[in-house]
Amino acid sequence: MIEEALKIRAGLVDEAIPKFLPITPPDELYYAMRHLLDAGGKRLRPSALLLAAEAVGGRAENMLPAAVAVELVHNFTLIHDDIMDEADIRRGLATVHKKWGVPRAIIAGDALYSKAFEILSCARSEPSQIAESIELLSKTCTDICEGQWMDMNFQIRKDVAEQEYIRMVEKKTAVLFAAAMKIGAILSGANRDVSRALWDFGCRTGVGFQIYDDVIDLITPEEILGKAQGGDIIEGKRTLIVIHALSKGATIDALGKSNATRSEISAALSILKESGSIDYAMNRAVSIVEAGKSALRILPDSEAKSILIGLADYMIERKY
Amino acid sequence: MIEEALKIRAGLVDEAIPKFLPITPPDELYYAMRHLLDAGGKRLRPSALLLAAEAVGGRAENMLPAAVAVELVHNFTLIHDDIMDEADIRRGLATVHKKWGVPRAIIAGDALYSKAFEILSCARSEPSQIAESIELLSKTCTDICEGQWMDMNFQIRKDVAEQEYIRMVEKKTAVLFAAAMKIGAILSGANRDVSRALWDFGCRTGVGFQIYDDVIDLITPEEILGKAQGGDIIEGKRTLIVIHALSKGATIDALGKSNATRSEISAALSILKESGSIDYAMNRAVSIVEAGKSALRILPDSEAKSILIGLADYMIERKY
Repeated sequence: MIEEALKIRAGLVDEAIPKFLPITPPDELYYAMRHLLDAGGKRLRPSALLLAAEAVGGRAENMLPAAVAVELVHNFTLIHDDIMDEADIRRGLATVHKKWGVPRAIIAGDALYSKAFEILSCARSEPSQIAESIELLSKTCTDICEGQWMDMNFQIRKDVAEQEYIRMVEKKTAVLFAAAMKIGAILSGANRDVSRALWDFGCRTGVGFQIYDDVIDLITPEEILGKAQGGDIIEGKRTLIVIHALSKGATIDALGKSNATRSEISAALSILKESGSIDYAMNRAVSIVEAGKSALRILPDSEAKSILIGLADYMIERKY
Repeated sequence: MIEEALKIRAGLVDEAIPKFLPITPPDELYYAMRHLLDAGGKRLRPSALLLAAEAVGGRAENMLPAAVAVELVHNFTLIHDDIMDEADIRRGLATVHKKWGVPRAIIAGDALYSKAFEILSCARSEPSQIAESIELLSKTCTDICEGQWMDMNFQIRKDVAEQEYIRMVEKKTAVLFAAAMKIGAILSGANRDVSRALWDFGCRTGVGFQIYDDVIDLITPEEILGKAQGGDIIEGKRTLIVIHALSKGATIDALGKSNATRSEISAALSILKESGSIDYAMNRAVSIVEAGKSALRILPDSEAKSILIGLADYMIERKY
């Protein structure tokens, strides 16, 4: 039932993307901007925005500009992150910089960024609600940059603490979920407490989502994941799993070793399993998401609220 | 008198930048964002915004958030452009990617981008004026990306026509001048005709500015310019000068030759002088700026209007 409900919202977003981001001259730029968007994706952030709006009595149809804006911001970060990570594959396709080169990928990302604000500023809502949403989205984008910067610093540090990691993940990943939900609430005229509760829900479930995502990156085979298994290991990422294992005195030879073989990656995986670090991260993800769900108590019961609860559970149960 | 008047506005912007963009954690990110900003610069775009506001009866002090936002957008484009152009030096300093590496320079640019919208969304104006300004600034940023994309395409084409070049320059450079002035007008409550006139003035003078800038890149020695002379030639840029020379049948051996020697660049310069292409570009810049100035007829006489006229002249008379 949850998957079906999410699919309906994702379908609305899928339909809206080409309407708000048509191919116009210079066409090739817009093809580059649409490359990852057209490859699909779960549309979790825009779906969360639609559901948040519905949960406070708003109408999903009126939220499509904002929903598309949030998905564009997400895709902009993917394009630039892939350049930084020198990633070749995303969603089973060549990454934008692999296909168009780094300079054009930088521009395609930048253009998605500005289109997001352009589309949001044309939403059918009160100017004050639009101004508030844009302020939130821009602050969120700054947070994402700060989180990405912290993440890069962590890769050259050995002593990252769990709390620092959580703070980084909040900025890099969770605030966009949080902002999506709060924007859905703001544009639907929700009051401050309700908007804030949806932000809290989005932020906590977003952290849980990312911790669980790091687990998935480790344990999911390439043919399902659409990108190389254990990529975070060879990139040297200090995920919660790695932080836990290192704190238990584990030695992970493949960590940060960009030319690690498949068997070295397998050995690293075994060590992370044996140290209990994968289970530890899974449990942390679950408890953080549970805390997020409790923030929704302020909302009256509704179908949308149930789906949001289901979305939170989905975030830590999905297989990829 | 004009230079003094511009210096006063630039000084206001210089003071406002650290207020609106303080160094906060992660500090190093903010140092990277401030690197080019702190190196100075003429602040022409934010000064134009302040003057446009003054010319329609607004107060410069109230426009500082918007002025800083526009300067941040300009600096964001410089950081990303330098990555794409693989430029080492800007304003006499190492470029951001030279100092911090490409991934961090991408983030620093992205963060300036979001800060610009964040600062503009907090301007002390009516929500409807803020929403309109943000819509304009975001559309302008999309235009800049389109212009940059066109510029890159032109470098691998031999048949760029003058009109295409002007269209590219409008998007890549002029629309930010135009938007700066229109935002100054919008936030000061100017009517639609006046706002539009200031946009026209900014767009035309911006095109003139860029054509003249291409001339300066050619004829100014490195020690004054702060970057290598003739960089546009070895990058293969189809500037108006090059387009004119090629249309006259000139052969420019150093064009697009990244390892061209100083004497090859000098030879290219002589050819561009002899073909009359440098004079042609100068004259085009002058006539476009004159057309821009005539757009200001709609405004009542004022000190700010006189300074704007002077700014237009300055754009095609400055030495670097």
